Amino acid sequence: MTPDAEIIAVGSEMLTSQRVDTNSLFITDHLNALGVEVRRKVIVGDDRALLTDAVRHALEHAGIVILTGGLGPTEDDLTRESVAEALGRTLVFRQDLCDAIEERFRRRQRKMAEINKRQAYLIDGAEVLPNPSGTAVGQWIALNEEQEDGRVVMLLPGPPGEMKPMFTDQCVPRLAQRLPAQVIRARFYRVTGMTESDLDQLIAPVYKKYTNPATTILASPGDIQVHLRARCSTAEEAERLLAEVGDPIEELLGERIFSKNGDSLEALVGALLRERGATVAVAESCTGGMVAERLTSIAGSSDYFIGGFLVYSNKMKQDALGVDAALIAEHTAVSGEVARAMAEAARVRTGATYAVSTTGEAGPESASGVPVGTVYLGLASPERTQAVRVTFPGDRLRVRLFATQGALDYLRRRLLGRA
Amino acid sequence: MTPDAEIIAVGSEMLTSQRVDTNSLFITDHLNALGVEVRRKVIVGDDRALLTDAVRHALEHAGIVILTGGLGPTEDDLTRESVAEALGRTLVFRQDLCDAIEERFRRRQRKMAEINKRQAYLIDGAEVLPNPSGTAVGQWIALNEEQEDGRVVMLLPGPPGEMKPMFTDQCVPRLAQRLPAQVIRARFYRVTGMTESDLDQLIAPVYKKYTNPATTILASPGDIQVHLRARCSTAEEAERLLAEVGDPIEELLGERIFSKNGDSLEALVGALLRERGATVAVAESCTGGMVAERLTSIAGSSDYFIGGFLVYSNKMKQDALGVDAALIAEHTAVSGEVARAMAEAARVRTGATYAVSTTGEAGPESASGVPVGTVYLGLASPERTQAVRVTFPGDRLRVRLFATQGALDYLRRRLLGRA
Repeated sequence: MTPDAEIIAVGSEMLTSQRVDTNSLFITDHLNALGVEVRRKVIVGDDRALLTDAVRHALEHAGIVILTGGLGPTEDDLTRESVAEALGRTLVFRQDLCDAIEERFRRRQRKMAEINKRQAYLIDGAEVLPNPSGTAVGQWIALNEEQEDGRVVMLLPGPPGEMKPMFTDQCVPRLAQRLPAQVIRARFYRVTGMTESDLDQLIAPVYKKYTNPATTILASPGDIQVHLRARCSTAEEAERLLAEVGDPIEELLGERIFSKNGDSLEALVGALLRERGATVAVAESCTGGMVAERLTSIAGSSDYFIGGFLVYSNKMKQDALGVDAALIAEHTAVSGEVARAMAEAARVRTGATYAVSTTGEAGPESASGVPVGTVYLGLASPERTQAVRVTFPGDRLRVRLFATQGALDYLRRRLLGRA
Repeated sequence: MTPDAEIIAVGSEMLTSQRVDTNSLFITDHLNALGVEVRRKVIVGDDRALLTDAVRHALEHAGIVILTGGLGPTEDDLTRESVAEALGRTLVFRQDLCDAIEERFRRRQRKMAEINKRQAYLIDGAEVLPNPSGTAVGQWIALNEEQEDGRVVMLLPGPPGEMKPMFTDQCVPRLAQRLPAQVIRARFYRVTGMTESDLDQLIAPVYKKYTNPATTILASPGDIQVHLRARCSTAEEAERLLAEVGDPIEELLGERIFSKNGDSLEALVGALLRERGATVAVAESCTGGMVAERLTSIAGSSDYFIGGFLVYSNKMKQDALGVDAALIAEHTAVSGEVARAMAEAARVRTGATYAVSTTGEAGPESASGVPVGTVYLGLASPERTQAVRVTFPGDRLRVRLFATQGALDYLRRRLLGRA
């Protein structure tokens, strides 16, 4: 039988009106993929008695108990002590962990603070879950191994950047090993260039007929994720069901699917540029650096990303890119003409194979008179220089996110000979 | 004594990876204003045994137990039954409630479905909390009134549009009447330029002596938040305690506190530039647009942000900014000399009052030979052009986040005449 899970988010800040626990969403996604259901979530402050009580209570109901947060070095980080108390185990100082933390500080020419020693205590019997991004190691505790009790408790750090890789790299494989053989096969599409409701209207007639595979649709600006998950006793059966639902969906969505393996648009564009030995530059106005930020978030992007121009003011468009003042006066800065001129100039001035440009009104006010949400995306390549007009819904941040995604997708489609 | 509160969000959909409970944030805000702390939040699915257990458990720890959701008409709406069971009370059919629901349907020319009768059951002894926006009435249960036990349980509908008016109009006044007059006052500092453990070592001797105000410390790359919350019977007393702890903390942290009202660094820098009628440009290498993205995330930033240069490659540093190839050859691109030359050129070429630059090794590999995590931040202003060397821990993303925050903070300190 597959055990249920309970997730405990630790930290008084999670009990303020400004913060929600989002770590549990990531964890839930991965647990579900393993066939594990989350039965309860608890959010508790930095209070030893309440936290200890929460762990005890969770262990009465759940086979898998996952705690996030409270592993820092300060006095209000109480997860280690509370779990140890709830389990009736001691905390053991581990010199090797202490040495590793000290070494981490030394590498940065800094001295470890005395309080960081708190992070070198392990609950008796726990396995260390290494944390490449921070000083707080995680802990994995399998209870009563000899009695085949099967319950496990995990202590994970609170910062998502540390928790996520630890959970996927360390906890998911350990859990998969313990759980009953059940085959889960998944397909995962990332889609851009349409709204969530248009997408749903298009593909619902296909997936609605099935509860297995389960279909989940998740939207963020310019990036809709479609998950199909089949849960069967054999791989063949799961793959057959996935094909039955997934193949027609792929047909319907066509090139709007930009990734079938979870890769981000910037990773994909980077790979396409690298394959072709090509380079790219940017000329950004309304996105203010977001296109470049996405491109350079990929390790090794210096192989194909040359750089670019942030031409927020009209004067910068003229000075840095030589966009004709008369062109701006005639068409306004938010126009296809200016977007094309920006892309072309960025390509010529940097010597890049491709250049993308953005100019638009992100709001809340419109400076050009063009309606807020209107963005022109320009693209210069050896074949031709073009611009497209797009309109995006939402506030300033959403318009900028959509425009950034749109610019990267425009480049993707050009790289694939489809735009 | 003011009781603590526990909030229980009911609904299996709240345990999926797509949904978070946000009702509790609204409720928390109002409770805090009444001097009530939320000690724990629980999210539980549509499972009668678990829900009953959650209510029982909550009543052991909290004087105020608030449930949201599970008051609908369907079989999986189990809050009424579960709370009744946990309290050992019966459910009583109320003809007047049933009539009101029927009337509601009739007004819309519809017939009440049989299952809606479930919504006409009240827990014995409960007061009705009317719901002008839906068929699910809320319930207010004061326990053991005669023994002055003081504990209360509230059942509120899940849809925020129904829950919010019910809570503010019906529950807040009832709570205010029962609670001792109490106020909460808070201070909130955002700090940069030091690590969480250094900060804690510095200020722990001050705040450790106090449980009131309560101190919470929260860190993200380059941005540490310190919350102080005092809970007292009078505003004067709360302010006095806050000053007792907050004033020495402010003294110790000094200019590393960049905000006392929650404002982000980019909002603050924007306000300082605007005040001075000054403008800013950027020259970004390792941060690849992230400094500009932060600056332009603020509405109206076109008043002070001119634009800039993304000089990722050495050739771009030379072509777009005129950085001397010999300078790069002598010092490498990751050097104070190059950071200064970048900032100076960006300032001259854009005519901006200030220009900030970044050049560093974000990893995972080092191209220049300089250790990964090393970043030079340059700053040009009317007074002088300087650069500082900083080293940041963590992976590519963290180094870039730290460097971005560092660049904005360098500008902030210069704007304040402190760098």
